[in-house]
Amino acid sequence: MANANKWMIDPDDAVMLLIDHQSGLFQLVKDIELPTLRSHVTALAKVARLAKIPTFTTASVPDGPNGPLIPEIHQSNPDAIYIPRTGQINAWDNPAWVKAIEETQRKTLLIAGTLTSVCMSFPTLSALVAGYKVFTIVDASGNWSKMATDLTVARVAQAGAMPIDTYAVLAELMGTWNRPDAMDFADVMVDHIVPPYRALMESYDKAQSVQ
Amino acid sequence: MANANKWMIDPDDAVMLLIDHQSGLFQLVKDIELPTLRSHVTALAKVARLAKIPTFTTASVPDGPNGPLIPEIHQSNPDAIYIPRTGQINAWDNPAWVKAIEETQRKTLLIAGTLTSVCMSFPTLSALVAGYKVFTIVDASGNWSKMATDLTVARVAQAGAMPIDTYAVLAELMGTWNRPDAMDFADVMVDHIVPPYRALMESYDKAQSVQ
Amino acid sequence: MANANKWMIDPDDAVMLLIDHQSGLFQLVKDIELPTLRSHVTALAKVARLAKIPTFTTASVPDGPNGPLIPEIHQSNPDAIYIPRTGQINAWDNPAWVKAIEETQRKTLLIAGTLTSVCMSFPTLSALVAGYKVFTIVDASGNWSKMATDLTVARVAQAGAMPIDTYAVLAELMGTWNRPDAMDFADVMVDHIVPPYRALMESYDKAQSVQ
Amino acid sequence: MANANKWMIDPDDAVMLLIDHQSGLFQLVKDIELPTLRSHVTALAKVARLAKIPTFTTASVPDGPNGPLIPEIHQSNPDAIYIPRTGQINAWDNPAWVKAIEETQRKTLLIAGTLTSVCMSFPTLSALVAGYKVFTIVDASGNWSKMATDLTVARVAQAGAMPIDTYAVLAELMGTWNRPDAMDFADVMVDHIVPPYRALMESYDKAQSVQ
Amino acid sequence: MANANKWMIDPDDAVMLLIDHQSGLFQLVKDIELPTLRSHVTALAKVARLAKIPTFTTASVPDGPNGPLIPEIHQSNPDAIYIPRTGQINAWDNPAWVKAIEETQRKTLLIAGTLTSVCMSFPTLSALVAGYKVFTIVDASGNWSKMATDLTVARVAQAGAMPIDTYAVLAELMGTWNRPDAMDFADVMVDHIVPPYRALMESYDKAQSVQ
Amino acid sequence: MANANKWMIDPDDAVMLLIDHQSGLFQLVKDIELPTLRSHVTALAKVARLAKIPTFTTASVPDGPNGPLIPEIHQSNPDAIYIPRTGQINAWDNPAWVKAIEETQRKTLLIAGTLTSVCMSFPTLSALVAGYKVFTIVDASGNWSKMATDLTVARVAQAGAMPIDTYAVLAELMGTWNRPDAMDFADVMVDHIVPPYRALMESYDKAQSVQ
Amino acid sequence: MANANKWMIDPDDAVMLLIDHQSGLFQLVKDIELPTLRSHVTALAKVARLAKIPTFTTASVPDGPNGPLIPEIHQSNPDAIYIPRTGQINAWDNPAWVKAIEETQRKTLLIAGTLTSVCMSFPTLSALVAGYKVFTIVDASGNWSKMATDLTVARVAQAGAMPIDTYAVLAELMGTWNRPDAMDFADVMVDHIVPPYRALMESYDKAQSVQ
Amino acid sequence: MANANKWMIDPDDAVMLLIDHQSGLFQLVKDIELPTLRSHVTALAKVARLAKIPTFTTASVPDGPNGPLIPEIHQSNPDAIYIPRTGQINAWDNPAWVKAIEETQRKTLLIAGTLTSVCMSFPTLSALVAGYKVFTIVDASGNWSKMATDLTVARVAQAGAMPIDTYAVLAELMGTWNRPDAMDFADVMVDHIVPPYRALMESYDKAQSVQ
Repeated sequence: MANANKWMIDPDDAVMLLIDHQSGLFQLVKDIELPTLRSHVTALAKVARLAKIPTFTTASVPDGPNGPLIPEIHQSNPDAIYIPRTGQINAWDNPAWVKAIEETQRKTLLIAGTLTSVCMSFPTLSALVAGYKVFTIVDASGNWSKMATDLTVARVAQAGAMPIDTYAVLAELMGTWNRPDAMDFADVMVDHIVPPYRALMESYDKAQSVQ
Repeated sequence: MANANKWMIDPDDAVMLLIDHQSGLFQLVKDIELPTLRSHVTALAKVARLAKIPTFTTASVPDGPNGPLIPEIHQSNPDAIYIPRTGQINAWDNPAWVKAIEETQRKTLLIAGTLTSVCMSFPTLSALVAGYKVFTIVDASGNWSKMATDLTVARVAQAGAMPIDTYAVLAELMGTWNRPDAMDFADVMVDHIVPPYRALMESYDKAQSVQ
Repeated sequence: MANANKWMIDPDDAVMLLIDHQSGLFQLVKDIELPTLRSHVTALAKVARLAKIPTFTTASVPDGPNGPLIPEIHQSNPDAIYIPRTGQINAWDNPAWVKAIEETQRKTLLIAGTLTSVCMSFPTLSALVAGYKVFTIVDASGNWSKMATDLTVARVAQAGAMPIDTYAVLAELMGTWNRPDAMDFADVMVDHIVPPYRALMESYDKAQSVQ
Repeated sequence: MANANKWMIDPDDAVMLLIDHQSGLFQLVKDIELPTLRSHVTALAKVARLAKIPTFTTASVPDGPNGPLIPEIHQSNPDAIYIPRTGQINAWDNPAWVKAIEETQRKTLLIAGTLTSVCMSFPTLSALVAGYKVFTIVDASGNWSKMATDLTVARVAQAGAMPIDTYAVLAELMGTWNRPDAMDFADVMVDHIVPPYRALMESYDKAQSVQ
Repeated sequence: MANANKWMIDPDDAVMLLIDHQSGLFQLVKDIELPTLRSHVTALAKVARLAKIPTFTTASVPDGPNGPLIPEIHQSNPDAIYIPRTGQINAWDNPAWVKAIEETQRKTLLIAGTLTSVCMSFPTLSALVAGYKVFTIVDASGNWSKMATDLTVARVAQAGAMPIDTYAVLAELMGTWNRPDAMDFADVMVDHIVPPYRALMESYDKAQSVQ
Repeated sequence: MANANKWMIDPDDAVMLLIDHQSGLFQLVKDIELPTLRSHVTALAKVARLAKIPTFTTASVPDGPNGPLIPEIHQSNPDAIYIPRTGQINAWDNPAWVKAIEETQRKTLLIAGTLTSVCMSFPTLSALVAGYKVFTIVDASGNWSKMATDLTVARVAQAGAMPIDTYAVLAELMGTWNRPDAMDFADVMVDHIVPPYRALMESYDKAQSVQ
Repeated sequence: MANANKWMIDPDDAVMLLIDHQSGLFQLVKDIELPTLRSHVTALAKVARLAKIPTFTTASVPDGPNGPLIPEIHQSNPDAIYIPRTGQINAWDNPAWVKAIEETQRKTLLIAGTLTSVCMSFPTLSALVAGYKVFTIVDASGNWSKMATDLTVARVAQAGAMPIDTYAVLAELMGTWNRPDAMDFADVMVDHIVPPYRALMESYDKAQSVQ
Repeated sequence: MANANKWMIDPDDAVMLLIDHQSGLFQLVKDIELPTLRSHVTALAKVARLAKIPTFTTASVPDGPNGPLIPEIHQSNPDAIYIPRTGQINAWDNPAWVKAIEETQRKTLLIAGTLTSVCMSFPTLSALVAGYKVFTIVDASGNWSKMATDLTVARVAQAGAMPIDTYAVLAELMGTWNRPDAMDFADVMVDHIVPPYRALMESYDKAQSVQ
């Protein structure tokens, strides 16, 4: 792979940050179907593990109506580390969070968060000022209105963050089909990002067996 | 239950007919998201089994590009019986199909099919003329355009069929929460019809455990 | 008023039925904005009281994730009577519910319920068979998908129910501006159904005072 | 085929009527994409010929801005007969039109027209009063607004016409894949109604040749 | 013309009723663009005059924030008669209104009103019970929500009213291009219903003059 | 006015360019309603005249199916100058066009054109390279698809053009209500940009006269 | 808080500017629901007070049909100061307005205004040239068309303004849940920005009390 | 032509890259109608040939369910060269691909690819870093979601690519109507990009022949 490209993700320099994907907050999401959002977040958790990318999660006041983190994140990625915070809205305001990231010695952050305009946006803006290269995964973040998402994308892009979708993250981390674990990446893609592809594979298999 | 109501489903008089839910045909579907459609069909297969309703499936030219039946129907409902047909577009034109239904001695048909305006609609119209009471499950059927679906609903309703959605079928067959298998019905509902409800249940459980 | 019209509501013959408007179930609603739905239900509760129409409420398994009835119903209409049920999905399957309605000796039912395709639809179909005249208030009911709502409207209309919107219910019960409590009806309309009208009234008042 | 079904089309009793599909009028169409409409009309012209159904066309003031009939109708169906009219908006007000239909001694009319709410609707209503069974092919008719189309479907259905889509017409006339000209019907379907199916067939062919 | 058709409008038996098209109420309209609605109402006023159809207007509390009738109705049709009412929401509850209609000795009513679900719907239902044939012109009526309009169309159709659009009303009253005032009808159509047709006419004229 | 602001329009430095607003090309427009587009172009023609801004128009092959310029441009602004071109797609490739602009000695261009992605976009990009400050009036330009418009806005903004809407152009040229011709600007706004405002003014006038 | 971040809001450096939120102008708003807009503006008024941010309002010709400021702004924030202007369309052209802002000695402006493309946009562009850091709160501004809003966001972002949504403003000013007035901020959020969250809180409370 | 403009395409410096337009992948496309996408790609293949622009194609794992390249690309442009790749997701990671481009000694790339966020986006970002000027033809690329497309456009524009639509590419390569092959370009436009224009040409021809 020739990924020493400032506009693309270098898997060896990347950290995955999944922020505030909580069952209560999910009820407020309006810019994306809930099962789709949930599926995308699971895809990121799995693909981070396949690509051996350090993954950190956190939650905002999970004992109240915001609710707990959706369980499939840590189920899908047992290596992910949960970092509690103490009331800060911006996860970057939590020193433990910043320290964990700094200790990876990586400088590329892949950030998804619910709500997009707050939980994804604020740490993104803080990380940019701190000198990180940031990719904001907008369709693995949920927001309270479509207009708010559009405004947030414009805001973070203006500050230098690079907007990206879940499928592109997977493809960019995978890089090539010539790798031993290619089918593991493909499974994540089919199970969590483009489910109609499954019907296509079934038809393909059938077509081959018809002869 | 007081279901001796001509506008409602009597579970003891019902037959489930799942027609032409094939992976190739699914690629033509435009009026509903493909994973959603697939999930609704699975819900019907499962709930028919729970309610002990005879279930018949069929496929149109499954060796060609229409592709095979989606596998989860028979996986979810091993009691379902597949009845091949020999070229007829209208499943009701196949004597084996009509005979299988007649032998159940039931007179209420629950019909879903892909494409809605053909595979669901034609057997519905034939069955009505043959004296059956028919419920057409439109959101477990997929169609090639939204306008075609709207026209089909108007057409079959005019002929006397009763349009219905997947959730209503489940609830009508279930009838009450006071039954030993209530949680089995609930699982189908949460897994295949209203997945956002799962997050709600997680928040609820968390809220109770917080105290 | 000349309301001895079989297609319209006779306020003296009407009963208001508000079924399963619960905070948990509300999270599943997809065919109408949640604050709008909540506002319409409140309008019905208030207007029923103004028109002196007996009002009954019920809830489905309110101790679980379905959650409690939204509080503003009984706050807005202290005369409303809550009738618990014991697991039945169709409120009409609960003898206490039917008995309460029968004792009013009224034969016109105004029904709203969440979810539309189950909680509004099933009692509607049962009541029609029992000989009642039924108006289904679809925009004070919430449903899990827009397609499901469209199908439900077609289903209940085919059975003889009359679909209606919240504004029409208010206007039909009010009948004329020549009544002492006309402004009370107007307040409900402006506060809960057409809030933009408030800006209009402010502009009007301002325009008059400018001279 | 068991099509002696009052809700379905009997090919031996059918007449195809294609009314006012003119290039100028097409510029006013708002309820369907223009290339799609044009393609559906071509499909009807072709399928009528395959099913040996008498076909009549007409145009409204074709020398003015309404423009000429789109040429592919008569190119696709050289047997179609063009019947000029002399100013009547409702084609049924033209005695030559009615006479041509009567001479076929068929009683089932398949009607498409641009604009839907006028050119399709008026002859439909006249034919119903004259005792014909009428199928209105709404997605091979174009209208000046979506709302107008919805109102027209309700209007003609109320009068007894059966709304139908182009795909259903083709499938209903074809009836079975066990006929020598099945592939001719399939070509019309793929070329003019569901073009995405062509990609599916290409993938299928490829899949078979891969082995 | 062969309009002695129970599903169509007989111009010699028709009355045009334009109810509560007031500038204040117009601010509440959500189901149609305001200039479009205003233009359609103007078209009806003009076409009623061309077809010599008695026309009655009324307004609801025009001295308050509902505002005055939009002026172009009476400007476009000086023969229209304004009938004030005294607080009744349903115009049919006003004896002066019913009397004016009865005195025309016509039995076909063409009704448009703002809001659709109240001002158009209530008089429609009353007139049906009184034995009139009613056409409801939905796209010359404005409503407070699209869902309310859909419900209203279903409601009035169920009671026997025939839904129709503005263009169809014009075409049905005009009947043929072979009449001395054909261009007057055409002007109304181009100026108020399908304005894009004007560009088409300009292109046509230019094309002819190019040679 | 303090408009010596590089992000805003200085009326004394501005030129209005209206490119290829032709009746034939208008039939291809998909991203805006045709009457709305036509109305916005008229507003620009009028407001340019009020603000004494030199205005140039041109047309692409007006003798063919593209059709003539819509007549209201020059009717509304008799001072506008039409500059024919000889086949160039990009108006800036026509030396006579560039020369006319240069002779005004103004450096701020207000550009609208149909189609947006060609007739508005190409001269914009050429003018930017030539050192002009360019405002692209996107909602007075029509395009063949919404996606094409979105791409074009991104393209020209990236090159340095400033996207703007018709209302903002009017307001920016007008600057203040304290000018003798303020009502002339207001008339353009009400007649051509925000027609619902007319109803508001009628209600306001009525409200004042009620006292 | 670590808000010395050039891409974020420093509450101690911020001024809230609410421009032309008038009941008449509100009738022209097309890009956001009116009650939603009104609610967002109220949220800003309240949150500015909670965060002790100087707040200035103004209105454009409030004696005419534009109508008065909506009353809840000053009701919700008695500290807000109203600054009349004398005809200027751009509030920044009013010396009293600029002077009031300068006297706060703050350099970060939070601007919302109706119409977005004029009343929000012009002062934003002027303030940027004057050296201020500007956040434009687009969903607390209303505009006459969605396309105009999209164009305006692109325009002001290109000039250096940062687009933001109402929820993000609240969250950014609040910063942390560890502050004595956290519940006051939460009340604003639930009452005015994400009302569905109220149902969630009710369910949560119920769930805790069920045990 | 004066196209030595850094924001525009110089036909003599351009290379056309059509990446992964495969029949299987096409089934995943959600942001554009499939026949439209297919038609746009064909237009690019044809127009590249007309403009004598070197054209390269490639496919991703064409032996699997992704399926073969759609055949019309090479049918429409026999000069196009297919360059197989060996598993790389980013075509630019294939040395043979880069070498082929380098050997043209051209520095302007016109890139379309399915899926947009991967197959179009990755080579675009690589080419930008390698010093090429890149135009991304978004409506000749298909993507798995509309949101993903919006994010991708923002991403590649931020990196310096210029988004463009198919029509603009054709018009920019054509430049003027004063060239011998102008009608060949026009045929591509009418056949593959704006098919409604065909009806317009028919009406125009008819109008001229009417005289």
